[in-house]
Amino acid sequence: MRLGIDIGGTKTDAVAIDDGGLLTQRIRLATGFGSSAVVETAVSAVARIAELTGVSAGGFDSIGIGIPGLVDSSSGRVRHAVNLGFDGLELGGELAGRLGVGVRVENDVKAASLGAYHLMGLTGSMAYLNLGTGLAAGIVVDGLLWRGARGIAGEIGHIPVDPNGVLCACGQRGCLETVASGSGVARQWRTDDPLPVRSLFAAAADGDPEAKAIKARLAAGIASAVRVLVLTADVESVVIGGGLSHLGDRLLSDVHDVLESWGEASPFLASLELPGRVRLVPEGFPAAAVGAALVGVV
Amino acid sequence: MRLGIDIGGTKTDAVAIDDGGLLTQRIRLATGFGSSAVVETAVSAVARIAELTGVSAGGFDSIGIGIPGLVDSSSGRVRHAVNLGFDGLELGGELAGRLGVGVRVENDVKAASLGAYHLMGLTGSMAYLNLGTGLAAGIVVDGLLWRGARGIAGEIGHIPVDPNGVLCACGQRGCLETVASGSGVARQWRTDDPLPVRSLFAAAADGDPEAKAIKARLAAGIASAVRVLVLTADVESVVIGGGLSHLGDRLLSDVHDVLESWGEASPFLASLELPGRVRLVPEGFPAAAVGAALVGVV
Repeated sequence: MRLGIDIGGTKTDAVAIDDGGLLTQRIRLATGFGSSAVVETAVSAVARIAELTGVSAGGFDSIGIGIPGLVDSSSGRVRHAVNLGFDGLELGGELAGRLGVGVRVENDVKAASLGAYHLMGLTGSMAYLNLGTGLAAGIVVDGLLWRGARGIAGEIGHIPVDPNGVLCACGQRGCLETVASGSGVARQWRTDDPLPVRSLFAAAADGDPEAKAIKARLAAGIASAVRVLVLTADVESVVIGGGLSHLGDRLLSDVHDVLESWGEASPFLASLELPGRVRLVPEGFPAAAVGAALVGVV
Repeated sequence: MRLGIDIGGTKTDAVAIDDGGLLTQRIRLATGFGSSAVVETAVSAVARIAELTGVSAGGFDSIGIGIPGLVDSSSGRVRHAVNLGFDGLELGGELAGRLGVGVRVENDVKAASLGAYHLMGLTGSMAYLNLGTGLAAGIVVDGLLWRGARGIAGEIGHIPVDPNGVLCACGQRGCLETVASGSGVARQWRTDDPLPVRSLFAAAADGDPEAKAIKARLAAGIASAVRVLVLTADVESVVIGGGLSHLGDRLLSDVHDVLESWGEASPFLASLELPGRVRLVPEGFPAAAVGAALVGVV
């Protein structure tokens, strides 16, 4: 039995996976704010899953954590987890001390990549394109996370694709993230709706020209991200996940339409068969928690 | 002993490599034009190396060919080798018939990637960024070519980075290749010099403002290609090869300057330490021929 925990900005998911890879337990907790509270949340999640499965913390074959921020997976140190209220935390070490067993810590997008690959039964290579507040991808090749030389493989959100684009928080101009992410939409579409993308799609459906233009830029930005991933890493599949993926087929069909139109203008691009390589992560998949359970295992 | 052949648009290089990986013979022939002549060129190269080494064609541990165009390395079929005067050729099959032994066929940029990695004694991951008439990269991870799911990993020349850029031959607009390649320079800098890039650099050194602007776009385009490679695949090293690499440090220092200036504007980009990751393939390296000898071996 393996235990995986996905610590998100507001919610923490935890799962137990049996030896056959099947999800046997799943719980959700509110995430505490600040380093101590985040550690407590993880400890509580382990206790709850232990109680549900009858397996003690020390009895799991592995315990893994997925968490936003810059993660050093070898040391278990997490930095720049802004939404969780801390800048530096020895999460691996603190949890090992509290639980009495070692835990693996991985960036949440990387964990979700591994979880999606496993849960969707993929083979070969895939990129998990996470469209949340930001834009980042995780790459999995033959079932293994591909971190790259320095752990930044898939950080395509900060590839600029428009010299006249807006200034990105990273200091560059026209990054993919400035148009193809939740923060990119929120910057362009001012609304009181707590989910600006939902409001944007509703307004676009009502024919609002500005909403339609922002929505078109979003789809083109996502399609650009797919193109970068395939032309550089030639992953067989690109799986779209993250908050924006909840838009479902409305988002996917926009992206498909852009890729199809590009293929009409470029036989080269058409030969890559991009539309058929892009899909959505199934709704409700606890990909990051499952991936956390599998980090370092598969 | 292994034999490698690099069939270029005008010249064909062939090398013999001993069991220790050392280059023991090296010859250069003129490349014939058209499918039959290309096959004859390869057969002649094998005969010459066989004569020099005293090893018969059947006595080499492997014979590999690097050639421009779309190469199916599993079947030995080559398509779209426009500069060689043919559109389709069963090069692997034809050569096997003529030589009585199997040969491996690989795209020349991919072969050069493997050769550069080996000859430069690199470890970990690298991208070989070939700046010739076009722009394409080959990726090597832990000593092995990384072709991707469909053999197009590294085809970054056709990633658009400027929506207002010029129309590329591929049908898209603003591709990296339109600014950071020999053809990109030749389109912008009209000259009778058979080497437009040489003329461009001379004019820029003389203070010609248009030449300086084109040269700056070239450096920025190459730097953009480096950024795409590192942010997507996180290769440890990017090695610049191909015809434009003969410009040497004049080109490399321009690219370094661009990457340094980007790092000043973006702490994120600075953290990637891009300038230190980029180098030139040493002048005169028969990287593609050596790589061809090693394709499928290391």
